Amino acid sequence: MDNEEKMKLYKLRILRSFRWQKDIIIPLSKELGISSQEFEDILMNHLDMSSLNSLHSTYESSIPEVIMNKLEVDLKLFWYVDILELISKEEASDLKVQLSIKILDGYDYNKALEEGKQLILEMIR
Amino acid sequence: MDNEEKMKLYKLRILRSFRWQKDIIIPLSKELGISSQEFEDILMNHLDMSSLNSLHSTYESSIPEVIMNKLEVDLKLFWYVDILELISKEEASDLKVQLSIKILDGYDYNKALEEGKQLILEMIR
Repeated sequence: MDNEEKMKLYKLRILRSFRWQKDIIIPLSKELGISSQEFEDILMNHLDMSSLNSLHSTYESSIPEVIMNKLEVDLKLFWYVDILELISKEEASDLKVQLSIKILDGYDYNKALEEGKQLILEMIR
Repeated sequence: MDNEEKMKLYKLRILRSFRWQKDIIIPLSKELGISSQEFEDILMNHLDMSSLNSLHSTYESSIPEVIMNKLEVDLKLFWYVDILELISKEEASDLKVQLSIKILDGYDYNKALEEGKQLILEMIR
């Protein structure tokens, strides 16, 4: 087995790991409508070993930010804060932090969204 | 009719206008699960005449930003740009601008989203 083949095998071992499959390969390939095999190939071709090695922890450390951004959009906070000015930036930020903590603890995202709407209602009523 | 009653009537006339109902009252009250009547009352109590008068144009000028933020989250661009580094910030920005222009021209958001996914695929393949 030459070096290139070995490298490919190492990379594949990372990509086939449970956390890579669960957190990155399966959700993103599904989202793009391609097979997980094809998505693995794309990552294999574009990323080197050191990127692959560090990437899952980059992913993990950015989850809170991803959730906060998603909550911002899904709760339409921009409307209540920037357009209607019914909620302050601080209130919105506290709300997102509070919900993100629950979601990171495993709470269902859609349930958290519903709770977020109720909290918005309490703030503006 | 005293001044307070007059003011209330003026405000109600703005809130009942077609563009206010279509763009703000109906979508947001539905989102929050309350009647449009209740949402009108909330806005009536919280906003004065000058806010109400200027607010729809604030809304209109912020639509491009709202669409771009929603595309960012719905296309999961953060993943491809910041985590996997398969797409550059410039490519992602061009993609969002291109799709936003179509959406602002009346193109269906979900169709634009599907096109966006195809464009992402072309970039990373």
